[in-house]
Amino acid sequence: MPVGLSAPTIVLPVKGVKVASTACGIKKNGHDDLVLFYFDEGSVCAATFTQNAFCAAPVTVAKEHLQRKSPRAFLINAGNANAGTGQLGLDDARQSCQWVAASLACSTTEVLPFSTGVIGEPLAMDKLQLGIEHLPLVLHTDNWLKAAHGIMTTDIVAKAVSEQVELNGETITLTGITKGSGMIRPDMATMLCFIATDASIAQPLLQQYLSRAIENSFNSITVDGDTSTNDACLLVASCKAKTTLIAETKTAQTFYQALERVCTTLAQAIIRDGEGATKFVSIEVAQAASKIEAKTVAYTIAHSPLVKTALFASDPNWGRILAAVGRSGIVDFDITRVTIFLEDVCIVSGGSKDQHYTEAQGQQVMKQSEITIRVELGRGDLAATIWTTDLSHEYVKINSEYRS
Amino acid sequence: MPVGLSAPTIVLPVKGVKVASTACGIKKNGHDDLVLFYFDEGSVCAATFTQNAFCAAPVTVAKEHLQRKSPRAFLINAGNANAGTGQLGLDDARQSCQWVAASLACSTTEVLPFSTGVIGEPLAMDKLQLGIEHLPLVLHTDNWLKAAHGIMTTDIVAKAVSEQVELNGETITLTGITKGSGMIRPDMATMLCFIATDASIAQPLLQQYLSRAIENSFNSITVDGDTSTNDACLLVASCKAKTTLIAETKTAQTFYQALERVCTTLAQAIIRDGEGATKFVSIEVAQAASKIEAKTVAYTIAHSPLVKTALFASDPNWGRILAAVGRSGIVDFDITRVTIFLEDVCIVSGGSKDQHYTEAQGQQVMKQSEITIRVELGRGDLAATIWTTDLSHEYVKINSEYRS
Repeated sequence: MPVGLSAPTIVLPVKGVKVASTACGIKKNGHDDLVLFYFDEGSVCAATFTQNAFCAAPVTVAKEHLQRKSPRAFLINAGNANAGTGQLGLDDARQSCQWVAASLACSTTEVLPFSTGVIGEPLAMDKLQLGIEHLPLVLHTDNWLKAAHGIMTTDIVAKAVSEQVELNGETITLTGITKGSGMIRPDMATMLCFIATDASIAQPLLQQYLSRAIENSFNSITVDGDTSTNDACLLVASCKAKTTLIAETKTAQTFYQALERVCTTLAQAIIRDGEGATKFVSIEVAQAASKIEAKTVAYTIAHSPLVKTALFASDPNWGRILAAVGRSGIVDFDITRVTIFLEDVCIVSGGSKDQHYTEAQGQQVMKQSEITIRVELGRGDLAATIWTTDLSHEYVKINSEYRS
Repeated sequence: MPVGLSAPTIVLPVKGVKVASTACGIKKNGHDDLVLFYFDEGSVCAATFTQNAFCAAPVTVAKEHLQRKSPRAFLINAGNANAGTGQLGLDDARQSCQWVAASLACSTTEVLPFSTGVIGEPLAMDKLQLGIEHLPLVLHTDNWLKAAHGIMTTDIVAKAVSEQVELNGETITLTGITKGSGMIRPDMATMLCFIATDASIAQPLLQQYLSRAIENSFNSITVDGDTSTNDACLLVASCKAKTTLIAETKTAQTFYQALERVCTTLAQAIIRDGEGATKFVSIEVAQAASKIEAKTVAYTIAHSPLVKTALFASDPNWGRILAAVGRSGIVDFDITRVTIFLEDVCIVSGGSKDQHYTEAQGQQVMKQSEITIRVELGRGDLAATIWTTDLSHEYVKINSEYRS
C-alpha cells in the first residue's frame, strides 16, 4: 500500500483548460484509458522529456510538434506505450494527432501525443479513433480527477494536487496530475505529469521555471534507477491572469515556489506509491563540494540494493550506508570528515561508528515508515535531497510476475 | 543453490607456498576462520585492492606493508571485517601482523593482514592470538582446500582452482582460492582472492599481468553493484621455476593465459554462488566505440532490477533490456543501429522488435539456467563481457533477514 498517500479529493479547475477522459478499450479492465487536454488560444507550454535514447514514438512526435507551434491539445493513452514500435509507431502517433486536430479544428502539429503502458505492441488504432471522436463531447474544466484516473497504469492511487497563490491581488491556480509507480517499469512504462496554470507568463520563463522545479522534484526521485522510454512532464500556462509574471520579481518568485511545491508533491506521490514500497525515504547529502557530487552520493545510497533491503527489514545496518558512500566515486575523499545520521541519531562520525551510537537508537528510527538519512561530507557547503523507497519482497513479486 | 558450481576436489600444491587453516572462534559455528599463507624467501607479490574510499583497516595496513617489503606471509580471518573500526582497527591489524612475524621469524611489514565478515565490530584479539600461535604448527603445501573453506563467510561452496602449463619443458602450477557471494554484502563483506604460482617472474611484470587478468575477470562481475570495504586479490610467485618469464615472449603469454583462466574461473564461481542466484548470465556488448562504453552498457543492463527480475521470472521481457541500453548514457547514440540477441535469437534489430522474433523463442532461452545476452551497438569494433545473476526473492530474503 502507498506510504502516507491517499487519493486526492479536491482538484481545482484552471481557467482556459478543459479536460476529458474516457474508456476506449485499451485497458483490459474497462477503466478510463484515454485523456484529452484542450487549451484556450494564447496558452504557452513548457516540456521536459525522457533522456532515454530509446524514446517512444509519441515522445519523438511530441518533440517535433513542439518545435512548430504552441500546443492546443494533449492526447494521452494508457495501457500501451507505443515504444519499440519503429516506423509504425511514429505513423500511429501522427495519425492520432491528426484525428484530434480534425475534431478540435486545430492543426496536427498543435496536438501532442503521450502513451504509457506495455512496450513493443502496436496501438489499437480502431479503438483509439472511436475514443478520440468521443472525447471532445465531454471536455470540461472540472474533469482533472477523472483524468488522473485515466492516465494510471499500475498506480494504486490517483495522483493530483492543486495550489493557489495570490499574485498582485489575483488568485492564481496551479493544478497537476501525474502517474507512475516509479521510473521503474519500462514495459508498463512511464512517469507522465501534466500541470496547468492560469498565470500569464512568457514561454522562455515558463520553461526555465519548469526545468528548475523538475531538478528538485522529478529528477530527485528514484525507485530503482530505471528510467522509462516515455517519461514526460508538461506545464501549460493559459495566460488568463491580468498580470504578466516578470523574471526576478517577487511575484514571479512566489509563483515559482508554488510550482515547485506542486512538482515536489506529485514526485513524492510517485515514490509513496512506488512498487512494493513499505518506506518513504529522504536522503539528504550536505557539505558537498558541488550539487552534482551531493546528488551522486545520494543516488548511490538510494540505488544500493543492500541499503534498500536493510530499509525494508528496518535494520539499522549503517555499514551498508557507509560502504555505499565510499563507492560513490568522489575524488580525494577524506572519509574521516564524514558524518551520517538516521533522523537525529548520529551513527557515523569521523568515518567510523559514532562512540555514543547504540543499536537500539538506530532500530527506533528504522521502524518508522518515513525515514531521513543525512550524510555530511565535510567538503563544502552544497547539498541535495532525493527521495526513494525500500526494496521489498513485493517489488520482486510485482516485477517478476508481471508478464508471466 | 549455486548455478553450475560444485565444490572443488583436486587443488594442487604450489612449490614454495605453505598454507594453514584453523578455527579460532570468530565464526560462531566453530568452522575454520583463520588462514595463514607462508612463502619461501625470494617470492614476489602483486596485489589489487578495493576502490571503496571506506577501505577497512587491514586493507590500509596491507597497502603500507607492501610499500616496504615483499611479503612472506598473509593472515586472513573470516567472520569479522575489521572495517569502520577507526584507530583501534588499525592497531589490531598491525598487532596481528606482529604476532605472525614473531612466530615465523620475519619482520612485521613482511606480513599482510586480510579480514572479511561483519563491519563495525572490534576483532576478538585474544582468540586471534591463540589462533596465530597454533597456525605455524600446521603449515603444509597441501592445505589449499582447507584454506578455501577457512576464508568462507556466506559462500555456499568453497571456491578453488588449479591450472598447470608447460613452459620450456617445465610444469608450472597456478592455484587460487576465492570467497564472496558477490560484491554485494559490505557487512558480511568482501571478495578475497589468493593465487600462487611457482613461476619465476619479476614483480613489475607479475603486477601487470594481475591487473590485466583482473580487468577481464573480477572487474567483470557484478551481483548488484555494491563493492565492499575489504576487496583484495593477491598473486604470489614463489619463483621456484628455472626459467624466468620475460615480457612479450610466447612463454610469458602462455603463463598469462593460464592466469586469466584461473581468475575467470574464480570470478565466475563467485557469481554462480551469488546471493539468491538462480541464473548465471553473460552479458556481451559488441561493436562499441570503446571498451569503457561496452562495459558501461553491460553494467547498466546487469544492474537493472527490472532486467534482473525478468531473468528470475524467465520472462523474455526485451523492452527492459532495450530501455537499460537506452539509459546507459552513450553520447550521440543512434538506436536504429542496435541489435540485441538472447543466445542466438534476435529480439531487437534496427532499434525495435525484430520482425521474425516470437515470444516462444525468447521463452525457450530464458528458461535456461545459463543465459547469454548479446548487444551489438553498431558504433565500432570494441567489446566487453560481464557476468551477473538474477534478482530473486531469495536475494531480498537473505539481505533483509541477515542481521534482524
